[in-house]
Amino acid sequence: MSHPLRIGIAGLGSVGASLIALIQRRGNTLGGRPVRVTAVSARSRRDRGIDLDGADFFDDPVALAEVGAIDVFVELIGGAAGPAYEAAKAALIRGLPVVTANKAMIARHGLELAAIAEQQGVALSFEASSAGGIPIVKTLREAMAGNAIRRIFGILNGTCNYILSRMETDGLSFESCLAEAQRLGYAETDPTFDIGGFDTAHKLAILTSLAFGAKIDEEAIHIEGIETITQADLAAADELGYRIKLLGVAERTALGIEQRVHPTMVVKSSAIAQVMGVSNAVTIDGDAVGELTLIGPGAGGAATASAVAADIADIARGIVLPAFGRPLDQLEQAARIPMQRHEGGYYVRLAVADRPGAMGAIATRMGERKISLEAIMQKGRPAKGAASDQVPVVLITHATSEAAIRETLARALADGFILQKPQVIRIERD
Amino acid sequence: MSHPLRIGIAGLGSVGASLIALIQRRGNTLGGRPVRVTAVSARSRRDRGIDLDGADFFDDPVALAEVGAIDVFVELIGGAAGPAYEAAKAALIRGLPVVTANKAMIARHGLELAAIAEQQGVALSFEASSAGGIPIVKTLREAMAGNAIRRIFGILNGTCNYILSRMETDGLSFESCLAEAQRLGYAETDPTFDIGGFDTAHKLAILTSLAFGAKIDEEAIHIEGIETITQADLAAADELGYRIKLLGVAERTALGIEQRVHPTMVVKSSAIAQVMGVSNAVTIDGDAVGELTLIGPGAGGAATASAVAADIADIARGIVLPAFGRPLDQLEQAARIPMQRHEGGYYVRLAVADRPGAMGAIATRMGERKISLEAIMQKGRPAKGAASDQVPVVLITHATSEAAIRETLARALADGFILQKPQVIRIERD
Repeated sequence: MSHPLRIGIAGLGSVGASLIALIQRRGNTLGGRPVRVTAVSARSRRDRGIDLDGADFFDDPVALAEVGAIDVFVELIGGAAGPAYEAAKAALIRGLPVVTANKAMIARHGLELAAIAEQQGVALSFEASSAGGIPIVKTLREAMAGNAIRRIFGILNGTCNYILSRMETDGLSFESCLAEAQRLGYAETDPTFDIGGFDTAHKLAILTSLAFGAKIDEEAIHIEGIETITQADLAAADELGYRIKLLGVAERTALGIEQRVHPTMVVKSSAIAQVMGVSNAVTIDGDAVGELTLIGPGAGGAATASAVAADIADIARGIVLPAFGRPLDQLEQAARIPMQRHEGGYYVRLAVADRPGAMGAIATRMGERKISLEAIMQKGRPAKGAASDQVPVVLITHATSEAAIRETLARALADGFILQKPQVIRIERD
Repeated sequence: MSHPLRIGIAGLGSVGASLIALIQRRGNTLGGRPVRVTAVSARSRRDRGIDLDGADFFDDPVALAEVGAIDVFVELIGGAAGPAYEAAKAALIRGLPVVTANKAMIARHGLELAAIAEQQGVALSFEASSAGGIPIVKTLREAMAGNAIRRIFGILNGTCNYILSRMETDGLSFESCLAEAQRLGYAETDPTFDIGGFDTAHKLAILTSLAFGAKIDEEAIHIEGIETITQADLAAADELGYRIKLLGVAERTALGIEQRVHPTMVVKSSAIAQVMGVSNAVTIDGDAVGELTLIGPGAGGAATASAVAADIADIARGIVLPAFGRPLDQLEQAARIPMQRHEGGYYVRLAVADRPGAMGAIATRMGERKISLEAIMQKGRPAKGAASDQVPVVLITHATSEAAIRETLARALADGFILQKPQVIRIERD
């Protein structure tokens, strides 16, 4: 094992450059074995200020994967399909282990790629694909080996957490926080992918598979973004002892594995509620360990390179594990549970008509579906700028079903006692 | 690899019983391989309410290690020396991998045992020895492979954290919180080992070795306990934006690796400050990943068994890594740095003589050693119950050295302007 492990890196953006710098800082050793970057590929040969030290340069990542003088193929191009996928697949078919940071590709093509890896007896490693520098893949795949996971939930998108943190801390609107996040480079020009919850869903799909031994099924995920969160919600959350976070949640219920991404009320004293700014965090609830929370950087070149380097170190040490923790034929098919079947507590913010009998009528509708309330907050006066014929009311329900909540609110709307589309936010208990 | 991995468990206390239950819950499979508990040893054969399912019973753990029909020896007896050590050593000499939860044994004899394991080419695994269910050993040894660790610090003793949390949250005295912890079974009848910082030191010694690739050197650790922390300190910390935690800290400085256990001021907004009650937490500061924090249960049968099971799963998967992350001949000898050389910020609480010139004289003494202040808090009136000729003053210093602080305070005491032994608490910055 003393000849250097030859590494080919496809993609020389921020993560690729950080990885090359990291390997040099470690004296070209990872996992106790000499490593050397012997080939790279990128869209252009411009000077990136990194020492490529005589590595072969390929314009085409697929060519690098197919004929590069390498022992490991590291895919840092990104994108679910296209050259990233083609090159990773080519490398696996050639019998090379593949390390990737590509959440979209693993969420979409992970099972197919894992099948080739399994056939070839090589590693398909993707620690960097979820939660950046947090070693959540290794933790789920190895450290939790003695646990049946009951639930996993996390803050998996730093942009959303930054926006929600700023809104809460500084009382700013969603729009101005988003604009700021874009100025600071935390959010893309088209921020839909982040704030709409889609990035979180990619990562959740991967974590669900690892946590529950289930086949990746991204399309089974219920997805809501943070666009509708207002200062009124943050203020009410604060008063009731909660914070609002965009969470990815996967949970084993009596019906199967439920997967969802949505703004969530979390109890202020919980570990995950403390995570502010661009950090990520994941909480695992296992039947032996109880609750374990990992907090760290969810993005950034160096932190992501740290995760890629850990994967390379495992390969350098000769460790080959099934990509999703168990052989593919042992992965269960996750049931697709309609969100209507979700059970839990709810936060509901209503604009209630300011006339006699309104609250009574709403309460009656709730009673019809056996929804009981943990808290009611009515502040008497209408919200600033709101029409004077309505009163803002916030309800916190005990556990009920999504169907019950949705039907109740639809009926109360039809009754004419609720004057605007209600705001509904699910509560996640510790 | 399909014949069952035969496990021998020495010690059937809370962890041992939990481990047997865990293995049964997992359908006698760990790491994708069938496992079977084929032999156990304990001090008595009394019924423990666990199904030992025909496992051979040994009165003597050393006999179990030497002749038991087993492939892995799991040591759950405890104690630095005696049967735990003798049995673990015997198993390694026989060529069996050893899994242990024994922090005292690893801190004291880890290097010797690792040398035998290395010679035999078998695993010596001790995930459960530090921070209970938190996978800190795996994280340091594998997930941080791409990082140079700059600092690691953690809450490693749940008893101390419970006491400090209760003191802070409920305004109770150290003595009454300790008595309560004893009633609840969180603290031993002789609590010195916990509250004096010695338990934390065992764990820190192990984490230091893994984080820095250094030989374990428990005797190099500076140790202080939490006995001297008062409500006055907690109140001042709160007002200044800090919490007080008993931390184990290891840090690479220009002089070498500094290791210390002491009550510490941590900024309230830091992840570690949020950890209340019996939980443990560890923050790793790596040059690539930045800060990564793991929070979870630090004790308890099931959580500890989770860590033991992860070690067994790795062995079932055929993974054998150097016990301390690298071969023994590559571990560096940690320098023993006298605490006087420590540099950092300090919290100092003084009973200052209530007469003209007192603060000026103290400030002059500070100036002589170039200590500059970040904050001074003087509340005018003496503390309740304190002598009326003294004024309580709290100082927060900018970074300085332990020697400078100690000398300054000794001189100010000699000057007669400080009327009681000053309280000194180190500050740990994010």
